[in-house]
Amino acid sequence: MHTISEYREAFIEYLNLKVETKEPKNLYEPITYILNLGGKRLRPVLVLMSAEIFDTPFEKALDAALAIEVFHNFSLVHDDIMDDAPLRRGKATVHEKWDLNTGILSGDAMLINAYQLFENYEGIIFKELAQLFTTTAIQVCEGQQYDIDFESRDDVEIEDYLKMIEYKTAVLVGASLQMGAIVAGTSEECKKAVYQYGRLLGIAFQLQDDYLDAFGDPKTFGKQVGGDIIENKKTFLYLKALENSGKLTSNNLEDLYSINPMDASGKIEAVKIIFEESGAAELTRKEISKYTNEAFEVLDQIDLPENKKALLRQFGSSLMDRKV
Amino acid sequence: MHTISEYREAFIEYLNLKVETKEPKNLYEPITYILNLGGKRLRPVLVLMSAEIFDTPFEKALDAALAIEVFHNFSLVHDDIMDDAPLRRGKATVHEKWDLNTGILSGDAMLINAYQLFENYEGIIFKELAQLFTTTAIQVCEGQQYDIDFESRDDVEIEDYLKMIEYKTAVLVGASLQMGAIVAGTSEECKKAVYQYGRLLGIAFQLQDDYLDAFGDPKTFGKQVGGDIIENKKTFLYLKALENSGKLTSNNLEDLYSINPMDASGKIEAVKIIFEESGAAELTRKEISKYTNEAFEVLDQIDLPENKKALLRQFGSSLMDRKV
Repeated sequence: MHTISEYREAFIEYLNLKVETKEPKNLYEPITYILNLGGKRLRPVLVLMSAEIFDTPFEKALDAALAIEVFHNFSLVHDDIMDDAPLRRGKATVHEKWDLNTGILSGDAMLINAYQLFENYEGIIFKELAQLFTTTAIQVCEGQQYDIDFESRDDVEIEDYLKMIEYKTAVLVGASLQMGAIVAGTSEECKKAVYQYGRLLGIAFQLQDDYLDAFGDPKTFGKQVGGDIIENKKTFLYLKALENSGKLTSNNLEDLYSINPMDASGKIEAVKIIFEESGAAELTRKEISKYTNEAFEVLDQIDLPENKKALLRQFGSSLMDRKV
Repeated sequence: MHTISEYREAFIEYLNLKVETKEPKNLYEPITYILNLGGKRLRPVLVLMSAEIFDTPFEKALDAALAIEVFHNFSLVHDDIMDDAPLRRGKATVHEKWDLNTGILSGDAMLINAYQLFENYEGIIFKELAQLFTTTAIQVCEGQQYDIDFESRDDVEIEDYLKMIEYKTAVLVGASLQMGAIVAGTSEECKKAVYQYGRLLGIAFQLQDDYLDAFGDPKTFGKQVGGDIIENKKTFLYLKALENSGKLTSNNLEDLYSINPMDASGKIEAVKIIFEESGAAELTRKEISKYTNEAFEVLDQIDLPENKKALLRQFGSSLMDRKV
């Protein structure tokens, strides 16, 4: 077995080898650009790790890992257009550096390229990979649509929100682990179990991201603390606060979510007090624990030697062990 | 065997059965909308016809036919955004009727849906269909990129232009015919031959479209006559006229292609005179004949009974038999 940083290095080496700027340059340059912006390479690392856990050299899973990373970056390019985001990982987004049309078309080509990478697998493995990929990719699109819809809806339920983050984020984590298992040709039971482990961990991770957005330490949290509050995002914290408050506090919170002050610090403080006093902060921490524990329970039951499980558990723990 | 209108009707019936507006509505409604705007359904008809020509009930090819039509409409939705087009088949384009983000995301979902439709085929046929689809889809993206690039380039060669229309239009016609042959499980030789027939016919068709844009009868040509001239599009006619003119006429033509007068009728007439007098019009007619004849020669050599070939020939002839 290898360490996470060994998987990451091997993956980046493979990416550099495979992703080249062909003609027409204006189509392929933005693809090379976005794929080289860095990031934690979390999803491809999971593909490689999963293959090795199921007794297959990780090298066999490199194409599947690259497909997942290319798809993830496709979704970033198109989402950045939809969010009108100027920056991604501190650098200009594709539609900013080039233009809207380049962002759309290069994104399209990346989605197709992802499928192309599966062609290096034999018949049945090819079909399994492509089929899982299609199901997952459709869910990611649906998740993005729900996210957009929620902005203008005032009847979003906790259940809707959980489905949205599951589709938009968590299923791709599950699919990454399952792809490694598919390449390794392991049992259906194991494939399903690692998928569930990734999916549950993905939901916990996203809930934690929402939590840290409000209560994280500005020094260690990567993004601007309070960003979701500034953007009036209906996160788990917000929905739980509404659910657990009387009419007065609910109205107060909704009022705070209808304003966009130049200096948002007062708004952020007021909202955070409601999140705390309504019990939403505590309930969110509990929900994060619930999904994390569920993930680890699924992991416990997978038919794998303990040292292999330990690796997956360690990865999950390190993922969830961010400073609050 | 069935008639073209029988294939078309069967296809539309299948489309109505299969394409439904699921949740999230804002993602799937635009897909139902664009797929129901009509059109000639040329590509899916070719898939069905090809399957039957190779002795397989066309019903088996309906999913492949739908995949091709869904992909074609995906490319229309994204191209319409890139071209800022308000209308498609006389109705509002998706990004006009909804908005930019809806156009991008619904288009993405359509591209994934196309792959999903291949899942109804067995292992080896699935892989062959998905692989041909991927190759073709990437070429369509590259063709669109070349088309965009040509707008701002003044060194476009005839060869570049032919490659652009081949990728942007013709390969999908070839792929449609090949998909029917794949579903029918015919020989590699036949698969390649019908692909070539479609590809060559597709190039001839696109060249004819360029020709008719300038010289077509306004009463029978579907689009605005002179549209390409108004938009200063570097078509085959334009490039041939530059190649075949002296410095004076070339400069004159380039000047005409640098202006955008409110009333374009004078510009259109002047350009058409250059197209005629330079011999470009005649050379374009010859090029159309060349590709059409090449297509029919490929067809002659396919290992098929004469009555089957006659159907493909008839389809090709009816396609090319538009009034000049």
